[in-house]
Amino acid sequence: MAALYVFLLFVTMNASPLNGKSAVVFQSDFGVTDSYASIMRGVAHSVDTDLQIFDIRHNITQFDTREAARSLLENALVWPSGTVFVSVVDPGVGTVRRSVVLKTKSGHYFVSPDNGSLDMVAQELGITAVREIDESVNRRKGTGEAHTFHGRDVYSFTGARLASGVITYEQVGPLLEPKVVQLEKITEATISEGVISGTLTSVDSFGNVGTNISTETFEKLGLVRLEDHADITVKHNGEILYSENLPYVKTFGDVSKGEPLLYSNSNYYMELSINLGNFSQRYGIESGSGWTIEIRKAK
Amino acid sequence: MAALYVFLLFVTMNASPLNGKSAVVFQSDFGVTDSYASIMRGVAHSVDTDLQIFDIRHNITQFDTREAARSLLENALVWPSGTVFVSVVDPGVGTVRRSVVLKTKSGHYFVSPDNGSLDMVAQELGITAVREIDESVNRRKGTGEAHTFHGRDVYSFTGARLASGVITYEQVGPLLEPKVVQLEKITEATISEGVISGTLTSVDSFGNVGTNISTETFEKLGLVRLEDHADITVKHNGEILYSENLPYVKTFGDVSKGEPLLYSNSNYYMELSINLGNFSQRYGIESGSGWTIEIRKAK
Amino acid sequence: MAALYVFLLFVTMNASPLNGKSAVVFQSDFGVTDSYASIMRGVAHSVDTDLQIFDIRHNITQFDTREAARSLLENALVWPSGTVFVSVVDPGVGTVRRSVVLKTKSGHYFVSPDNGSLDMVAQELGITAVREIDESVNRRKGTGEAHTFHGRDVYSFTGARLASGVITYEQVGPLLEPKVVQLEKITEATISEGVISGTLTSVDSFGNVGTNISTETFEKLGLVRLEDHADITVKHNGEILYSENLPYVKTFGDVSKGEPLLYSNSNYYMELSINLGNFSQRYGIESGSGWTIEIRKAK
Repeated sequence: MAALYVFLLFVTMNASPLNGKSAVVFQSDFGVTDSYASIMRGVAHSVDTDLQIFDIRHNITQFDTREAARSLLENALVWPSGTVFVSVVDPGVGTVRRSVVLKTKSGHYFVSPDNGSLDMVAQELGITAVREIDESVNRRKGTGEAHTFHGRDVYSFTGARLASGVITYEQVGPLLEPKVVQLEKITEATISEGVISGTLTSVDSFGNVGTNISTETFEKLGLVRLEDHADITVKHNGEILYSENLPYVKTFGDVSKGEPLLYSNSNYYMELSINLGNFSQRYGIESGSGWTIEIRKAK
Repeated sequence: MAALYVFLLFVTMNASPLNGKSAVVFQSDFGVTDSYASIMRGVAHSVDTDLQIFDIRHNITQFDTREAARSLLENALVWPSGTVFVSVVDPGVGTVRRSVVLKTKSGHYFVSPDNGSLDMVAQELGITAVREIDESVNRRKGTGEAHTFHGRDVYSFTGARLASGVITYEQVGPLLEPKVVQLEKITEATISEGVISGTLTSVDSFGNVGTNISTETFEKLGLVRLEDHADITVKHNGEILYSENLPYVKTFGDVSKGEPLLYSNSNYYMELSINLGNFSQRYGIESGSGWTIEIRKAK
Repeated sequence: MAALYVFLLFVTMNASPLNGKSAVVFQSDFGVTDSYASIMRGVAHSVDTDLQIFDIRHNITQFDTREAARSLLENALVWPSGTVFVSVVDPGVGTVRRSVVLKTKSGHYFVSPDNGSLDMVAQELGITAVREIDESVNRRKGTGEAHTFHGRDVYSFTGARLASGVITYEQVGPLLEPKVVQLEKITEATISEGVISGTLTSVDSFGNVGTNISTETFEKLGLVRLEDHADITVKHNGEILYSENLPYVKTFGDVSKGEPLLYSNSNYYMELSINLGNFSQRYGIESGSGWTIEIRKAK
């Protein structure tokens, strides 16, 4: 008997299975100067006071479904299978966009308007099923006359009921075709004749500039980390704004303080940075539309 | 107004049973660049490591007891009965204002200085009792010489002990008269000869402009949603700053991108907005003292 | 100084028993506009879905190990014994600075790069042991090629495993000498011939200006609270910017609205403030390098 308990304990401690209830993890573009975010937490807590409730953040750029999509993907890679994400970035609140719950092959659930926010997790994790939320069941009672706060009345409520086991995934609502609304395509990084052509996709709070060039693609250039350099050219709308020769290193501390570097970030994409400095600010480099990068092996 | 809140509340009160321990939910004007907020969380956690601890937010405008009051009311409508709110917006810390715990008829508890922060929940939810915190018992040991951080030493400590069942409500301290300090009255919206006269009460992070005109009052004009328009006049200190004819709709997406609209918000008050835009910024309209609005049915 | 902290701590250590699992409490300089902080929470939650997970804050000034150190100390004084703090302020990520877990005599654990962040808790709470994190064991699987996000792959992971009991403290890794990297010394407040000479160490969100003068040192001047005044001189790089006679009071409300005051703050250090106002802004006084203060008893 003791052995059995030890065995069960071993499983619990090492495998981190779920203990019946999943966490609800929120993100939104509601900002942090109103009660909107805490009202969603309150709704979830009122569904089940034992639920674990977390926030990714609520300062997604307003109506930016691409940022919402990237944020969901980054988080899904670390939060455990079974986690219920509730994402409310909804430029079309009150329009015909569908309210859905996506289940991915990784076992994560995503409660969101189907407006592009789900594109990246669907692509990267694979779709198990997409269900439309049946608001005749999965909506807080007494809120039928409110048409503007679906985050409170539908998404948070449904996410919490799913996470706590009040409803099964099947009870969310009817099955849809296993696909989600896609974001406008951005150019994939390409490699041709020893030159990688990509785009700048993000700037984080440290000023590190992210690209759409995976480490896998980059390594086709044949650079050896800590030995080789790369020629970097950054353009904005075709105009060259930055052209330098950067060392390819493992991490910031591999160069002196204030020196720029090229490295593979924690999600295995290539980034530009300055050790203990701000690459974006120093060189006036941003990300998004019109920002492109070329990388070639230095001679 | 009260009737609407009671209706919403009915939903809340029946949403979820409590499992013995209640959550502690904090708000304050301490800001987010210090340890003050996390120190309050730490005190609550040290009282009972099983407690669920949440934040509304800690960036209430400093010393703004009206904003504190509105925030408490908005949240009490969704957090379950039994929840213990700890609100520390305290322009009179160290003065004779009383430290109290209000219990409302909805079963919520509010730990706060009695300085107007409790006015709205008292009015809308009804007072069951008000008790003064007896600091000879309900104060962290060894802090008797600290006179400036009641949020840590008294409010968080007492709220957590109440939520976890370490003390009963009766053990908070002596009963006071069942009333709380009231905020200065703001003009209630009035209707006369087909004209509603109200005030602008808030601007949220999306630039939506809130009013003190309840949907119930507004509907006395006899407008049919999605069919009728209203003539809106906004004044600042009596000077007309905005005068337009707006459609009365259900939700943002009922008008084209960039178009203004009039709608009933998620708490059943009338708001001005722009679909996918910022009403406040575009028209230079703010809220508070001196900002008034008139609404009449368009011909 | 140490005596005061030990006194405060005594209160903390006896406040609450632990129920087997400890909380994980995060701080970092990652900012709040990325997924970095929530990814650390997600890693901890995936280690053990029952863990209580909290944040101090993630807007520590970038690379400011002194601010990280002060924040850890302020929090350790209230969070219960057993709490596992994970602090990621890491100007040397990827360099030879050690990743350690400090256990203090108060029973708290601190997971952090050993770069000065741990100096204050080590000094004030006392060192029980310092262990280096053995990354061959205590690192998320499959992340061996990532060299820039130790907060995710090592610190959060190790902190959560320790808090949940997956590993014991001994299993963190090998014992190091019982010491941590120290911050550059800042001048201690001194008293000589009735004049206290100190420095300005902080400005909080209310504009209260903190000093390195403990209440214990201050009281050697023999001032009686609520009766006496002190002559205050603030200099920046030797130039006098402020010279006034301030009342020594218990709390803000002891002076009229808008009046300046001198008081002992909630951690028993002397601070300058204005009742319902912002001392720092009104007088243009900041803190840090070059900011000094002299206090003497007014005649």
